[in-house]
Amino acid sequence: MSSTTAGQVIRCKAAVAWEAGKPLVIEEVEVAPPQAMEVRLKILFTSLCHTDVYFWEAKGQTPLFPRIFGHEAGGIVESVGEGVTDLKPGDHALPVFTGECKECRHCKSEESNMCDLLRINTDRGVMLNDGKSRFSINGQPIYHFVGTSTFSEYTVLHVGSVAKINPAAPLDKVCVLSCGISTGLGATLNVAKPKKGSTVAVFGLGAVGLAAAEGARIAGASRIIGVDLNAKRFDEAKKFGVTEFVNPKDHDKPVHEVLAEMTNGGVDRSIECTGSINAMISAFECVHDGWGVAVLVGVPNKDDAFKTHPMNILNERTIKGTFFGNYKPRSDLPSVVEKYMNKELEVEKFITHEVSFSEINKAFEYMLRGEGLRCIIRMDA
Amino acid sequence: MSSTTAGQVIRCKAAVAWEAGKPLVIEEVEVAPPQAMEVRLKILFTSLCHTDVYFWEAKGQTPLFPRIFGHEAGGIVESVGEGVTDLKPGDHALPVFTGECKECRHCKSEESNMCDLLRINTDRGVMLNDGKSRFSINGQPIYHFVGTSTFSEYTVLHVGSVAKINPAAPLDKVCVLSCGISTGLGATLNVAKPKKGSTVAVFGLGAVGLAAAEGARIAGASRIIGVDLNAKRFDEAKKFGVTEFVNPKDHDKPVHEVLAEMTNGGVDRSIECTGSINAMISAFECVHDGWGVAVLVGVPNKDDAFKTHPMNILNERTIKGTFFGNYKPRSDLPSVVEKYMNKELEVEKFITHEVSFSEINKAFEYMLRGEGLRCIIRMDA
Repeated sequence: MSSTTAGQVIRCKAAVAWEAGKPLVIEEVEVAPPQAMEVRLKILFTSLCHTDVYFWEAKGQTPLFPRIFGHEAGGIVESVGEGVTDLKPGDHALPVFTGECKECRHCKSEESNMCDLLRINTDRGVMLNDGKSRFSINGQPIYHFVGTSTFSEYTVLHVGSVAKINPAAPLDKVCVLSCGISTGLGATLNVAKPKKGSTVAVFGLGAVGLAAAEGARIAGASRIIGVDLNAKRFDEAKKFGVTEFVNPKDHDKPVHEVLAEMTNGGVDRSIECTGSINAMISAFECVHDGWGVAVLVGVPNKDDAFKTHPMNILNERTIKGTFFGNYKPRSDLPSVVEKYMNKELEVEKFITHEVSFSEINKAFEYMLRGEGLRCIIRMDA
Repeated sequence: MSSTTAGQVIRCKAAVAWEAGKPLVIEEVEVAPPQAMEVRLKILFTSLCHTDVYFWEAKGQTPLFPRIFGHEAGGIVESVGEGVTDLKPGDHALPVFTGECKECRHCKSEESNMCDLLRINTDRGVMLNDGKSRFSINGQPIYHFVGTSTFSEYTVLHVGSVAKINPAAPLDKVCVLSCGISTGLGATLNVAKPKKGSTVAVFGLGAVGLAAAEGARIAGASRIIGVDLNAKRFDEAKKFGVTEFVNPKDHDKPVHEVLAEMTNGGVDRSIECTGSINAMISAFECVHDGWGVAVLVGVPNKDDAFKTHPMNILNERTIKGTFFGNYKPRSDLPSVVEKYMNKELEVEKFITHEVSFSEINKAFEYMLRGEGLRCIIRMDA
């Protein structure tokens, strides 16, 4: 607690979403000190993920405004609240949109990362401790987003939503590991687990899908087949190890049949990163009988139904769902950062744009136009 | 080839199904010698499985008659054809309805037992080598069934459909391991893999389901919840380690909700052994998020659709299908026999009836009335 700001309200800049779909406004906000089991983080770099845009547009959800979005980021601990022993001021950390309390059945299970206490909650705009926001402007509370709200120079998080990482890791690079890239990477490395020399199909070549492809490359897959409706994505995808491209629009037959023909009966593993229900079903039906495993990552619409003939399952196929690549945020993210540090994982190729904090709305424009993969927002500029 | 009958046609008794659904008739048949890669087996004990009855009734399938049914059995090799090196006259063996060629991609995969060459084929009534039957009566060919046709004192099989076992194993007991019991046991031990102390739900308490429960008992599950529409089955099920019973008819809410309430959110593993599509969906939806695995064993109807909300999958649940408990017939069945020999696996409790070969139609009556689990048919009586 050596920080001079510890225990004080901090006044700083934040990008506030006052209304659904309207450009963010850089405002001066007050950030209250962290309470019990909370951490106040100085954000140095943040990036924009589809989930921010989705809830900012608020087309399907209950709107909750004014709100500070942002959840992919890297920062330094400014101060910690009572009871926090894992982190201290000066520690480098990644905020995570879903937490790890280390106490619940999920946290104690080797297999799950879906913490009962801190599992992602997009409807909650306040802190767990007192049901209130730590952000305000002239006394008006500004809502939090998924417990992170990284579009602010300072933010307050539950300690369970903060992963301490190697201080030597460059935060302007590893910040992208706090959400999408780890989601795709873990879907392959932790869940699909392709063997060396195997064939992997990836549905959807956005950042998450390309991270899944990167995982397949790291695992030594010999064929990585990218499936996307946008032919322009293939050139970029080659950098991520994608060896072949299938555009379902180019074929008269269902894409799972196209893949089965290309692979003598089906791929060994598939990873679905679009959230389209048809892609989910195709991703399952394209895996080989006897040993094929399909991993679902993309989040579907509320009314979707996953539907297949049960013989497709009985013929020894497996479907698995994953959330945040099955990484436990606090326990496992430090090792993902190490994969970058030891050059096993390439992160730079995901970063296609960079803007200053004052230009944050440009990052939204890039994403809405489908341009690039990740745009880093520099908080100090 | 020391046998005096080797190379000769053998005349012996067989139970012939002349028409769908009509009692079998014990006839004198001629059994041709084994051709290349074939084995002639003297059957000592056979038992009756639902699949025999299903194809004998021939309600949904293309009828293929006259035919010799039977596939759960134990016997002794009488003679072998050209090229057979794994087996010799006198070897004790279990015939298996699905084979293992040891050459195809499936046989070479560690994960699959769905041999390309010898995978179960219920429509074929002849041998692969020459497309002809080895059984005849006065020159009229009698069709084979799933490559085994064990309702005959002698039968001819492809070598890939014969598992050589420990000659000390009593064939009147281990014969039941050649189909249903291994199917259920393997579904639990090889596919669901429950941890010690976990909670397992078994849908359907027939022989296969009880074998799945036996697997859960062997694996050290602390709670084994049997689900069946027939309340009478629970008493018998207790012998197989089933600790609790749920009859969906006794509840107003869906059975997966009943199970979730009983288990603080869902079972760790479920095994579906009925083939009812509703049971399949319930068996999936009753597993816990984060780590639950549902294993499908029962064979559905042609027109069924497996349908669930994709979020049920995305919340880190797994669905896996299995066939013959994922056992490779030749490579793995000997070890299942050893589980019985070292008293880990209890087989006697599955054997509820015994009849002489001349009374084989009684075994059909028991099964049609839903009486007991397995009826051993003694070929020498």
